[in-house]
This record gives sequence, structure tokens and C-alpha cells, in this order.
Amino acid sequence: MTEQAISPRHVYFDCDLGVDDSLALCYLLASPAVDLVGVGTVSGNTSAEQAARNVLDLLAIAGRDDIPVAVGEHDYRTSQYVCGVQHIHGDNGIGNVELPRSAREPDPRGAVELLIELSHRFDGDLHILAVGPLTNLAAVLDADPTLPSRVASVTIMGGAVREPGNVSPVAEANIGHDPEAARIALSAGWDVTLVPLDVTMTNTFEERHRRRLLDSANPTAQAVGRIMDFYFDFHVPEYGRRCSALHDPLAAAICAGGVVPTVAPAVPVSVDTTHGIGRGQTVCDLRGQRNGWHDVDGEHVRVVFEVDRPVADHLVDVIDGLRG
Amino acid sequence: MTEQAISPRHVYFDCDLGVDDSLALCYLLASPAVDLVGVGTVSGNTSAEQAARNVLDLLAIAGRDDIPVAVGEHDYRTSQYVCGVQHIHGDNGIGNVELPRSAREPDPRGAVELLIELSHRFDGDLHILAVGPLTNLAAVLDADPTLPSRVASVTIMGGAVREPGNVSPVAEANIGHDPEAARIALSAGWDVTLVPLDVTMTNTFEERHRRRLLDSANPTAQAVGRIMDFYFDFHVPEYGRRCSALHDPLAAAICAGGVVPTVAPAVPVSVDTTHGIGRGQTVCDLRGQRNGWHDVDGEHVRVVFEVDRPVADHLVDVIDGLRG
Repeated sequence: MTEQAISPRHVYFDCDLGVDDSLALCYLLASPAVDLVGVGTVSGNTSAEQAARNVLDLLAIAGRDDIPVAVGEHDYRTSQYVCGVQHIHGDNGIGNVELPRSAREPDPRGAVELLIELSHRFDGDLHILAVGPLTNLAAVLDADPTLPSRVASVTIMGGAVREPGNVSPVAEANIGHDPEAARIALSAGWDVTLVPLDVTMTNTFEERHRRRLLDSANPTAQAVGRIMDFYFDFHVPEYGRRCSALHDPLAAAICAGGVVPTVAPAVPVSVDTTHGIGRGQTVCDLRGQRNGWHDVDGEHVRVVFEVDRPVADHLVDVIDGLRG
Repeated sequence: MTEQAISPRHVYFDCDLGVDDSLALCYLLASPAVDLVGVGTVSGNTSAEQAARNVLDLLAIAGRDDIPVAVGEHDYRTSQYVCGVQHIHGDNGIGNVELPRSAREPDPRGAVELLIELSHRFDGDLHILAVGPLTNLAAVLDADPTLPSRVASVTIMGGAVREPGNVSPVAEANIGHDPEAARIALSAGWDVTLVPLDVTMTNTFEERHRRRLLDSANPTAQAVGRIMDFYFDFHVPEYGRRCSALHDPLAAAICAGGVVPTVAPAVPVSVDTTHGIGRGQTVCDLRGQRNGWHDVDGEHVRVVFEVDRPVADHLVDVIDGLRG
């Protein structure tokens, strides 16, 4: 067993929390492989401000008021944030569940400042997990172009390759909300693991998994089990049953090393920043991959298509303290 | 058995012949389900002029000098034709095979005029098969917007949906060469069956099929067997063996009714006509199709993903007079 497998990874979580973000956060808090060192928020599923409130309230339930939570970008690079997706994530981003309000307020530093500080503190050993629009990552790369040299890995939930998009026929929400930011974040020269709808839509969280959260001794898990109820309804037309896709939690599990990508070639990835019908698409060049997946020389974005284990079981096992 | 199954379909073949176009032509000539009433050519695999020469020479071998062959558009709607794809189709479009030169010259009518005339002669009973850039179809729709009312069906080889493109990560050649024309042809209100790379790349023609062409008593089949030799070499890096994809011949078999699409939902299809990285992509909206394929109300472009039988065997059986 290597040192890395024993020492928890220092993880910075950039999110627009968010129902599935809540499950991801619960997992990160429970995983012995993760040391969650900070959270930044961005508008997406809900506003950056509301997302920070949700994170603070969940961290209070978990007894983790030590983790700094900073508000990031409210608007996108070339457009304004209008509203979240109330029909998916509820009016408050967490499925209309009212959590006890934490007395804590967001960090006085903004998300950009917090991430830069943490990158110095954990120089070379900081893992970024981004599960919302990439507006904050683009902003921090603007503010400090040396950031990538201090970051060990970047895991991004976003994009759609062979799978249809979810905000257009070809665009996934995180990329589609701020394509210009995504282009910057994906081309910064750091190693990125991109977790697109291709793998998050084919790995689902079922009612039996949600029941385990509700029945858990972990109070954060109980809260997340309630939060997911509304989200399960949204997925019925897509799947024909109450369940959910595993967008952000799967990215969290990959970031933590709990789930290992088995098909994840490093390939050319570009973001469509036109204002045409392809806007927000993650254009991945998969030509020449028919005879077996392989990395393309010089590329640093790995696109995950398959993982090594049943994800939902792993998530709930970790949350229940069973190590997955 | 219905009347339609007995009477051959009147088929107009618009092509940029082309190696795989040659196999398609050979099939159309052999099929008892097809009455080939005219051929138009467009630049693509080779120039419109060279394509017409190739068609004339193949028809002469087949003893079918009665079929009119008209030259269509040389340049695309917003760009000039530069050259063909010599590394795929050879310098002359037919794998560098030298056919005996037919004494016949192309029809004095252009392809636009020929198609309009045929649409009146076979009013309501004309099936268009287009396997090159859609420049001619767009031109004829410009010239006579009433054309769709006289056309029974349109089968188009083109596009890429879940499969990678072949001229860009997302664009297939026929659509990518002239996206503006494709947009016009796909939105003319007529019923279109689109045969994209998704189904043409997964149905291959193997060396044993090519051998059957070479060994055939049909002299056109023998010529096509030789023509395909060069093309087989091109496919080795893609498939790891000498073989070919079945682009145009599969569209021909579908047009003839010899191969029946089993998964072919009518869905919204748009063509990306921006000048960004998505240019030439056929953007198909497949959202909501996870619970079983279904047609979307009001849509008239069916996108073929699966067919009912081994295509290559069917092609060679028909060419050998075995009815497939």
C-alpha cells in the first residue's frame, strides 16, 4: 500500500450545492480518503449565496464548522445568472428541505482568494473537485496563472460526449452555463479528469440507497436522504422510476480515489463558445479509438466513460463508515 | 404482399462517386426492388465532373446507357470545392482503377433540371437517394420549392450523432462539406431517412464480401470489387483489418427497402452552420429517449441507429442475383 493510499487527500470542493452536490459533500465528509480543506460556491443549481448557506448548514449538522466556506462568482463570464433550476433542485437548491440554520456566515475571503491561499498551504498536494459551472476556476486562473503548478489534480463534473446534453441537445449544464469559463479551466495545462453525463447518467442512485441514507446513524446522511426525495421525482420521466443520476457524487468518488475510472482516455477536448446550436458542447475527439481506448499524446484532459464498481453502493458504504 | 413490395421503386441517385458510391450503384442496378431513373453528381469524394465520368463508365459496363447522368454543383454554397479525398478514394474517385471509357457524355441538362423533370414524370413515386454533399438538393429546392410534394421519400447518407465525425470530431464529410445545403435539405418538410456514421461505421464489408464481387458473373460487380481494394487499405488503422465501412451502400439498401431500420426515431435534427468547432455537426436531440426510442411529434427526419440484418451479405446476395 502506498503512502498516498493511506494519507487522506486534501480536497477543495467548488460547488453550486445543489441536491446531488449535497450527497457529494456528505461523501467527502465521511470518506477516510479525503481531508476537505475548503469549499467555494458558484451560481448554478442555485445562487452562489444560497449554495454557501446550504453548505454551511450541512457542515453544521456534520459538526464541521472548521471548514472554510467562501462565496464565489454570482454571474458567468459573458452572461448573468438568472435563477437556478427550481424544478430539479427545489427553490432553495436542496429539494425544499429546511435545514437548521447554522450561525456561521461565509468566509470573509471570496472563493478565489480562499483557493489561492489553500494552494500555497497544500502546495503540490491539493486536489480540486469542481461540480458546478467553472466560473470560479476561470476567475482564479485569471487571478493567479501559477495556480496549476501547485495543484495535484482537478476533477470536474461536466460535459456530454456520446450522451445527450441536459440543457441543450449537446450541452451539459455546468459547461453550458459558462462555456467561456469551461474553456479556460479545461485548457490551463493541469491534469483534468472530466466526468461527463456519459458516465453519470448510466450510474444511478436508487430508492434502496436513499433509504440507507434515511436509516443511517449519520445525521448529515439523514438530511441528504430527505433532500434527495424531490430530486428523485424529477428523474421519473427519464428513467421510468424514482432514482437519480450520479453527477456530482460520482465525480467526488473519483476525486477521492474510491471509484477508479477504467475507461478514461486523455483526448483533445474543446468547448464550443459560439452562440450557435452547439454552444456549451464539450467537443471530444474520439476518432481513432475504435481499436481500443488510448491516450492521445500531449493531451491532459481524461474523459471518463466507465468506472470500476457500482457507484451508489460505494457511496452509501462510505457514508455508513463501511469504507466502500 | 403489397403492390409496393412488387413494383420497383423509382430511384434518383445523387452521388459524388466515389468508391463506396460505386458499390451502392452496383446494388441499385442489381436490385429488383429498384428502377434507377437518373443520376446526378456533386463534388465531394471527387469532383462532380469526375463523378459523372465514373458513373457513365460503370453504367456502360452494366449495359445501362439508358440511365441519364447529369453533372450537378461543383462548388458548395459558401465555399469552393478544392479537391477530393485522394487518400481514401484514389486520384480518380474509384480507387485509381482505370475503367474502359464510355463513349457517352453527361446529360446536357444539369442535375437540378434532371431531378425536377423526373419529379414530374414520377410524381409522388420518386425516391431520392443522396450520398454526397447536399448541395444539389439545396439547389433544386431553391429552384423549385414545390419539389417535396412530388417526392415519396428522401434517404440521405450523412451525419454523425453518437459516433465521432470523420472530417472533424463531430462532423461527417457529406454534411461537413456543405452545412448550409444540409440545413436546407433536412428542413424542407419532406420525409428524410438520415443514415449517419453511427450505423454505417458499425456495419462493415469484409474481404470475403469483396472476394464475392471479384468472383461474380456480374461484370460491374467485378469492377467494384477491384475499385474497393484501395479503400480497404484506408480502413486498416480504423478497424485493424482490411475491410470498409458501409456508408453509401447501406443508405442504398435502406432506400430500396432491402434493409429495414429497426431503430430510427424521428427527432429534431439541426445542422451547425457556425464557423466554430461544431461546424457541420448534425445536432440530433435524443433527450428523453432513454426509456425506449420514440418519434417526436412533428419531426420528419428519422435517424437510423440500427438495421434488421447483416448488410454486407444482403448487398452481395442482391448483386449476385440471390435477392438478399
